[in-house]
Amino acid sequence: MIIQLKQDITESQKDSLIAEVNQIGYKITEVKTQLGDYLVGIGKKDFDIRQIGKKEGIEDIHIVSDEYKLVSKKWKAKPTSIDLGNGIFIKDGDMAVIAGPCSIESEDQIRKVIAHLKENNIKMMRGGVFKPRSSPYAFRGLGIDGLKLWYDLAKEAGIKIVTEVMQVSQIEEMYPYVDIYQVGARNTQNFNLLDELGKVDKAVMIKRGISGTIEELLQSAEYVFSGGNEKLILCERGIRTYERASRNTLDLNAVPILKAKSHLPVIVDPSHGIGIRAYVPQMALSGVMSGADGIIYETHEIPEKAYSDGQQTLDFAQSSLLAEQIRKTFALRKTFALL
Amino acid sequence: MIIQLKQDITESQKDSLIAEVNQIGYKITEVKTQLGDYLVGIGKKDFDIRQIGKKEGIEDIHIVSDEYKLVSKKWKAKPTSIDLGNGIFIKDGDMAVIAGPCSIESEDQIRKVIAHLKENNIKMMRGGVFKPRSSPYAFRGLGIDGLKLWYDLAKEAGIKIVTEVMQVSQIEEMYPYVDIYQVGARNTQNFNLLDELGKVDKAVMIKRGISGTIEELLQSAEYVFSGGNEKLILCERGIRTYERASRNTLDLNAVPILKAKSHLPVIVDPSHGIGIRAYVPQMALSGVMSGADGIIYETHEIPEKAYSDGQQTLDFAQSSLLAEQIRKTFALRKTFALL
Amino acid sequence: MIIQLKQDITESQKDSLIAEVNQIGYKITEVKTQLGDYLVGIGKKDFDIRQIGKKEGIEDIHIVSDEYKLVSKKWKAKPTSIDLGNGIFIKDGDMAVIAGPCSIESEDQIRKVIAHLKENNIKMMRGGVFKPRSSPYAFRGLGIDGLKLWYDLAKEAGIKIVTEVMQVSQIEEMYPYVDIYQVGARNTQNFNLLDELGKVDKAVMIKRGISGTIEELLQSAEYVFSGGNEKLILCERGIRTYERASRNTLDLNAVPILKAKSHLPVIVDPSHGIGIRAYVPQMALSGVMSGADGIIYETHEIPEKAYSDGQQTLDFAQSSLLAEQIRKTFALRKTFALL
Amino acid sequence: MIIQLKQDITESQKDSLIAEVNQIGYKITEVKTQLGDYLVGIGKKDFDIRQIGKKEGIEDIHIVSDEYKLVSKKWKAKPTSIDLGNGIFIKDGDMAVIAGPCSIESEDQIRKVIAHLKENNIKMMRGGVFKPRSSPYAFRGLGIDGLKLWYDLAKEAGIKIVTEVMQVSQIEEMYPYVDIYQVGARNTQNFNLLDELGKVDKAVMIKRGISGTIEELLQSAEYVFSGGNEKLILCERGIRTYERASRNTLDLNAVPILKAKSHLPVIVDPSHGIGIRAYVPQMALSGVMSGADGIIYETHEIPEKAYSDGQQTLDFAQSSLLAEQIRKTFALRKTFALL
Repeated sequence: MIIQLKQDITESQKDSLIAEVNQIGYKITEVKTQLGDYLVGIGKKDFDIRQIGKKEGIEDIHIVSDEYKLVSKKWKAKPTSIDLGNGIFIKDGDMAVIAGPCSIESEDQIRKVIAHLKENNIKMMRGGVFKPRSSPYAFRGLGIDGLKLWYDLAKEAGIKIVTEVMQVSQIEEMYPYVDIYQVGARNTQNFNLLDELGKVDKAVMIKRGISGTIEELLQSAEYVFSGGNEKLILCERGIRTYERASRNTLDLNAVPILKAKSHLPVIVDPSHGIGIRAYVPQMALSGVMSGADGIIYETHEIPEKAYSDGQQTLDFAQSSLLAEQIRKTFALRKTFALL
Repeated sequence: MIIQLKQDITESQKDSLIAEVNQIGYKITEVKTQLGDYLVGIGKKDFDIRQIGKKEGIEDIHIVSDEYKLVSKKWKAKPTSIDLGNGIFIKDGDMAVIAGPCSIESEDQIRKVIAHLKENNIKMMRGGVFKPRSSPYAFRGLGIDGLKLWYDLAKEAGIKIVTEVMQVSQIEEMYPYVDIYQVGARNTQNFNLLDELGKVDKAVMIKRGISGTIEELLQSAEYVFSGGNEKLILCERGIRTYERASRNTLDLNAVPILKAKSHLPVIVDPSHGIGIRAYVPQMALSGVMSGADGIIYETHEIPEKAYSDGQQTLDFAQSSLLAEQIRKTFALRKTFALL
Repeated sequence: MIIQLKQDITESQKDSLIAEVNQIGYKITEVKTQLGDYLVGIGKKDFDIRQIGKKEGIEDIHIVSDEYKLVSKKWKAKPTSIDLGNGIFIKDGDMAVIAGPCSIESEDQIRKVIAHLKENNIKMMRGGVFKPRSSPYAFRGLGIDGLKLWYDLAKEAGIKIVTEVMQVSQIEEMYPYVDIYQVGARNTQNFNLLDELGKVDKAVMIKRGISGTIEELLQSAEYVFSGGNEKLILCERGIRTYERASRNTLDLNAVPILKAKSHLPVIVDPSHGIGIRAYVPQMALSGVMSGADGIIYETHEIPEKAYSDGQQTLDFAQSSLLAEQIRKTFALRKTFALL
Repeated sequence: MIIQLKQDITESQKDSLIAEVNQIGYKITEVKTQLGDYLVGIGKKDFDIRQIGKKEGIEDIHIVSDEYKLVSKKWKAKPTSIDLGNGIFIKDGDMAVIAGPCSIESEDQIRKVIAHLKENNIKMMRGGVFKPRSSPYAFRGLGIDGLKLWYDLAKEAGIKIVTEVMQVSQIEEMYPYVDIYQVGARNTQNFNLLDELGKVDKAVMIKRGISGTIEELLQSAEYVFSGGNEKLILCERGIRTYERASRNTLDLNAVPILKAKSHLPVIVDPSHGIGIRAYVPQMALSGVMSGADGIIYETHEIPEKAYSDGQQTLDFAQSSLLAEQIRKTFALRKTFALL
């Protein structure tokens, strides 16, 4: 059950409301975001909702049978729009393009990528400064200094920054320089990190876990939302299966399912999803047709020399071509009556 | 190693050739199809191919390092085109649409589906008369009588028949009535069935196994080809993973990978791939963008009343819309420079 | 619902019974095995079983809510015992040991294996004469002649034969020479093969599918039972997962679960289950402790020279040691109060 | 390459050594643990190890081709023994038994569990005070106060504490009260947490990831070791597969493989591994026979009333029986010549 409270509800009205809901047998969690105040009730399902709904101070009330509540479309049918400023959005009915290298490597590299993005009218740039690596001996990124350098150049160019946050202590130091905090596939169920990201007023993009279910992805989003942050984006990036011919198995089924279950925007990462440069464009365009609200892919001036993930990274010529194809495919999709 | 023989090679030339290849340490399998004669050599890889290539009676010779040989693009770069007669093809650079019910149920049902296909200019009809079912107590199909009934109506309408063959003994009885033998996902590694389908001169569509790898699918195709039948089609239909929100996980990564590894046409089955009616269109269109040469999906006048698979079956209105969207998406894809 | 009929039920009593059950809304399948006559009813679940149970000609009646019926422990709590003659059994409360090579290769090889088995008091021998192989160019076994040769030697030695049947047409030709027909992991859902094995009066051992569920394995067994053959053995042999450090993932969880759900004996194949010779003994003994009724493993005089599966095959010294350890472990297990 | 340095190596000797190794093309990471100083070299493999080995200040040098180095048996054949004080060890050739509730709930609950453990001569107690939960609305544990309470009671009873650490900030506050830090299956690749646990001088038990590979588990252990902490324990707790009849798929194959690849002790968690109370004992005993150095399982006075995981938790009677069976099975295993 989700109860959306009126802005002017009094404390005593709220206390009385909570007491009554508790009595029915529901446990209440109070959620306060930048956009609204909610009571989330967890409990048994059969009671007359009108019994509560007529109480004072209530804006709206919904029964939500899903395990996740606040991110469910059963509560909020209207799609969530992520406003990054300067007219840049990630939202339903639009097609966000996010491109950039796996790792931020140098000022020169950043400049070249930014120039490439501007030429192709791409407004959001991805790149890692904190890199999760299976081996402790691998390159772990330029860290916060790399982010600051990137920020200066990106700001000047009007480009938004999407980058991974790996631990709680990084949230604050990254804050001035980041537009979208990315939660990586190995951290999808790092619940402490999700809790803390709930306290931030910047957008958070949560990647599906390496073998995470669709349900778990939504519950991870629920963590951030219930922590106070509604600016959430979901990302399908491939799952681990027995198949060895591709790096991961891009699960595009997840896109229409997530769009139907949740009001949050969904983007697709074809680079990690297949892991083979030559086939990234096909999977990106498939992602567009699956109903995604955006595509995030890796590009680098010379992929063979990239510090990481070169085998799945497009060069600039391929990237330019793909950006155009994404837009044309999306334009066609808009003419279709899909879900 | 694949040695394509000249039509006019003499027996003694062939014997001499085989003897020499054996001596190098390769084991030879002779393959005779309707289109050509081949020697497939299995053995160690390092010898000078010119040593063999200059012998008499040889059309062409290739080293193929893959486990599969005759279905590999390393041997035959030119895509295989499946000619079903009456100007109907399944081939690279084209978009085959195959639609129909899960199970053939009655004359009335067949008539209605055929009328729907004709209205939408769909030339190939799917349907099961022998149904593999997990439970022995479930509906197992109308059998050969259902196929004969279907054949009479389809022939009159100029519609080609795609239907599953479950065992060796059915091949012959089905032969007069079928245009494409379908090998189902539970029979992808039924090697005796594949062997016997190698002796037939009709097309065979092999579905990927329920948890089959891309490599295994190609090896299963190699069985049929090496048995003598080059008319092969591969079909991605979703694989089994841990995810429970969809029936299967449609692995569209497989499409560009199969197209790159093999000269055989590849089609996508979004109905089994996601298993949820409302999302079949998105996955079908994603399949088109992934580079597939065709789409096979389930449709029925009243899906809720279908004998099987109703939950993933489109009604005729949805099917008409999808057929049009597939064609528009394919038209756009043709303007792109993809792999 | 399962209705076990009395031996002396009259045709008119049976017809009346079926009519009444049909009227309640259950569809009836008549099953006649060597041991009994049954009516299996599929339908909705809520009616008073006494309404039927008091009719004449009924031995016993049970509601079975599982998808599988005749193999369910909900119907038959007493474990099924497989009697192979000469005092050799596969049954609950006992520990069957089955050993032998992956492939039957030659008379000399058979003689050596049989001598090894006799020395170690092992009474059942495994071996393949029809070999399912991913590649059409691999060794496919000695065929029926190999089986006849094996039979002559095994009969003389009092050793029972366990060997794979790959297709319907082999059932009859193998019949005189085989004690247990093995259905391989690629044929677990070859429903035609299962149907036909239902007509045979020899034991059938069904291996779990390469990525088959426990539920599917039981439904496959239901096929054979409902076809008329109650002499069934289930075999856990590892499933396909993402893990690459072992050939398969031996799922010993399946053993207590199968034993709890079904009255059929369950055996474990550690050779395929892990695929690495050095670790087969540990997994065999784990299998014993998981509650298995038997262990089937691969052994060969010189594993490195085996035609197939050498990497997971024990030599005779390892096999002797393991056979003894299996018995000691089972002796300890018998002193425990496990499920 | 791993170079173990002598205690008395001079700075200039070390600098010279590093310079020379760098020149060959290896990148060096210096590792200093409580037990030794190491240089870990990552690079190409073909050079004459004697060229380096004869330099001054070197205790030992090894080429290790695995991705993980310091946890590899190729470097250190002698098994690592974890000494918890008071004569309590986790080590090869021994059988550690760790039991306790999923969650620490109350003083009364702790007292009862401790009494049960003492009666059964169990010296290590598991229990969660920080609980990772898929849903933000679920019980998240008693936190640090629960740990302090537990510590007071456990210390008095001579019982060691095994409990999960979820984030970096908890390491220090937990330090005085914990004997073994457990890294949960959702944090196996939380690299920041692993880095920080490398700085601690208490034992760390790393659970295999929910769909983690054996290789990844070893690389995660490498993080902690290379951070400075050699006191490591690996734990197999089941992996995520398509099978739905059990909570996870306990992968006992992992035990002999981990024992062969690494010098670290390996323990098995049958409670999470199967997730069904009635079958936990069989899987625990299977784990013993697979070669594990210990078993960790869940027990509670009244499992049905446990705050979490009740369905897989043994009551005290079952636990007493299991502890005895584990010891008897281990006693038998010791008489066998296994890997």
